[in-house]
Amino acid sequence: MASIKPSVPKGTRDFSPAEMAKRNFIFDTIKSVFRKYGYQQIETPAMENLSTLNGKYGDEGDKLMFKILNSGDYLSKVKPEKLTAADSNGLVAYISEKALRYDLTVPFARYVVQHQNDITFPFKRFQVQPVWRADRPQKGRYREFYQCDADVVGSDSLLNEAEFVQIYDEALSKLGLKVFTIKINNRKILSGIAEVINKSDSIIDLTVAIDKLDKIGLDGVTAELITKGFTEDDIEKLKPVILLQGSNIEKLASLREALATSATGLKGCDEIETVLNFINAAPLQKATLELDITLARGLNYYTGAIFEVKTNEVQMGSIGGGGRYDDLTGMFGLKNLAGAGISFGADRIYDVMEELNLFPTEAVQSTKALICCFDKDAEAYAWPLLQQLRAQDIKAELYPAGAKIKKQMDYANNKQIAYTILIGSEEIESGQLAFKNMITGEQQKLTAGEIIKALKQA
Amino acid sequence: MASIKPSVPKGTRDFSPAEMAKRNFIFDTIKSVFRKYGYQQIETPAMENLSTLNGKYGDEGDKLMFKILNSGDYLSKVKPEKLTAADSNGLVAYISEKALRYDLTVPFARYVVQHQNDITFPFKRFQVQPVWRADRPQKGRYREFYQCDADVVGSDSLLNEAEFVQIYDEALSKLGLKVFTIKINNRKILSGIAEVINKSDSIIDLTVAIDKLDKIGLDGVTAELITKGFTEDDIEKLKPVILLQGSNIEKLASLREALATSATGLKGCDEIETVLNFINAAPLQKATLELDITLARGLNYYTGAIFEVKTNEVQMGSIGGGGRYDDLTGMFGLKNLAGAGISFGADRIYDVMEELNLFPTEAVQSTKALICCFDKDAEAYAWPLLQQLRAQDIKAELYPAGAKIKKQMDYANNKQIAYTILIGSEEIESGQLAFKNMITGEQQKLTAGEIIKALKQA
Repeated sequence: MASIKPSVPKGTRDFSPAEMAKRNFIFDTIKSVFRKYGYQQIETPAMENLSTLNGKYGDEGDKLMFKILNSGDYLSKVKPEKLTAADSNGLVAYISEKALRYDLTVPFARYVVQHQNDITFPFKRFQVQPVWRADRPQKGRYREFYQCDADVVGSDSLLNEAEFVQIYDEALSKLGLKVFTIKINNRKILSGIAEVINKSDSIIDLTVAIDKLDKIGLDGVTAELITKGFTEDDIEKLKPVILLQGSNIEKLASLREALATSATGLKGCDEIETVLNFINAAPLQKATLELDITLARGLNYYTGAIFEVKTNEVQMGSIGGGGRYDDLTGMFGLKNLAGAGISFGADRIYDVMEELNLFPTEAVQSTKALICCFDKDAEAYAWPLLQQLRAQDIKAELYPAGAKIKKQMDYANNKQIAYTILIGSEEIESGQLAFKNMITGEQQKLTAGEIIKALKQA
Repeated sequence: MASIKPSVPKGTRDFSPAEMAKRNFIFDTIKSVFRKYGYQQIETPAMENLSTLNGKYGDEGDKLMFKILNSGDYLSKVKPEKLTAADSNGLVAYISEKALRYDLTVPFARYVVQHQNDITFPFKRFQVQPVWRADRPQKGRYREFYQCDADVVGSDSLLNEAEFVQIYDEALSKLGLKVFTIKINNRKILSGIAEVINKSDSIIDLTVAIDKLDKIGLDGVTAELITKGFTEDDIEKLKPVILLQGSNIEKLASLREALATSATGLKGCDEIETVLNFINAAPLQKATLELDITLARGLNYYTGAIFEVKTNEVQMGSIGGGGRYDDLTGMFGLKNLAGAGISFGADRIYDVMEELNLFPTEAVQSTKALICCFDKDAEAYAWPLLQQLRAQDIKAELYPAGAKIKKQMDYANNKQIAYTILIGSEEIESGQLAFKNMITGEQQKLTAGEIIKALKQA
């Protein structure tokens, strides 16, 4: 047998017990918050028909989808000339009719259309599943990664937007983040800005440029806008908007002035104000909510609110984002179904928490108590004690007899087991078992009953 | 836009919120028991290299694997003659180097070998992930389904077998199953049986035949064995073993007599006895443990204990199975790593629980309280109440203003929400809100404070 060490495909990962414990802590926390706000979980298949996915992510997306080779004699119906052409792109349609999920949004849209008669609207769903992209792997970018999305469809109420702000706040606060900002913008404000300088047609160029304000500064933005055909005069008019200062209320007031001639822009201001009012009446835990009109994410897609979440404790891209869209399901022929959604960037949140050392000890601890035995007699003696511990719902293990105590202790340490119970002939005779706190190193002689009591309280 | 209703690929499924709630109940219960016994979760990628998977599942398995088409210009390195041959099987190796996980066992073996230096043995891991097989879909057989496995590697202690019996018992009892049997056998007993009639070479024929005793009776088994070259004399000697009666202890005693000349057979009896002794010292909750020497599952693979779980409440195939193996990782060049494992058949357990109506109400309930509003004023009035409910960790929703009360009530009913709170101008004025139990239909007028108190206790 070859002994070449096996490996995972490029860009994919195994998750060890320690990593899974931390990942579960993140996902369980976020899911519990989703549920608290009335969002319900669904799952969709890993594979979707190519007819469902094709054309939904642009050319780049079509290329980066992992396609599944048809099963059986997949070449049997391919005409010879198709084969000899050796045209990879051209042949795909003949030998593959399925691909791996590329995101959770298109499958969700497909789900809503397919099950529209069984769904109660507004439909508040969350979904936590892996997606696959044949991107070039690099630090922090994987070919398989989990997305973690919540969406509501069939409601245009701004209550939903306010609740998304609360969900971000509650989930990330629960995870232990202390200083983070939920940025909010509104597509209608961006449209209004373009409108008041008569550049509605150039809204993409405009927002792409001002989105870079952080990175390239006002001069950079100006230079970029000039190359895109904006005049000095346009830019002069834009300046007060781009360089908006003050509290959210002050920014809104300035915006209302600047957008006075745009009904759309004012509508955007109204929407933001409604969300701010909801949040003012229910103070956030740790998050700061900040109106940021440079925020543009996925502009083609969003029609109302736009969200992005940034931690201020470590250097890191956005850890969440989302917004409102008017037409999620139009691509599958179901029109006019409004919705809004957010997503959490689980991998980045993981890295942030790791860097800030935020994972609670209990979240990463597995077994609470390990019984270590000197020999077979001790194992037999320990077996009923093990049952008593588990009857109290204490996570407990008995190390099978036959290993040196050193090895058993290493096992406890490597598995981050909090307590060990040592049993040898002396302990059996006296009924006083050696009970050790593996974190403090403290060791006591206690009866089985006392140990159970101590572990129940620990 | 075409309005062809989109669908999922053949043999795959969407899971609705109601189905997910039930599936989560099953998986969460089983996972909690795995953890209680010291098993830790890992995850492996959906895709594995074909070099990892090929040849591990026989020719049939190789055929039923879903292969991933290489990304980019996947034909660029294929020689023209390979293409013109139009040989589907022959071409695969050139255009695909990855496939979807076919089970959890081979990826686990790959994981253990790849990470052997980071793993603390005995390594007790569980894994709950989907697998994919290009089988012809039929009732109860899907192309994507979850497997739910626990394995321990690096320990040959029979304590592990005893604990697997307990895990089955505890998990299925917790799920509400009342009458089920954990069948146990041992490969060494089967080897011993073949040995005492001098048919060690025909052990597969022998076990395949007696495995059918349930279905085809003794005459059928006899007929099949004759066609496989067994003599009347052989069969006469087999009869007492095949038709073993009585308690487990009585069966063991008979077996020891019948296998007196086979060291291997007696070793098997010892192993079974050790497991039975562990279990006798720690009575099971609902399960019956039954020694069944007709049980043979995956004989080529198992070297010691063999398990199978059957419910006795409804007609259904096995809902779990497993056993001990000596050489999980040999296929990847790591020899002599003993292990044992079990798996739960989640889809079948789901069907059993559905048929017996075992899903607890709390498991399928989502939101606990829905606040229904007659108008925008009521919505504004309700917003602080909603915050108070959630501050108490009560899952609560506020139906956005603008919908008829009938629609809001339908929403509550469809989502199985237990309580509704109705707010209109009258309620705002009096401070007495209409609080309705959606299950009993009972309705009271209560203050916000009283409602919070009632919901906390409900």
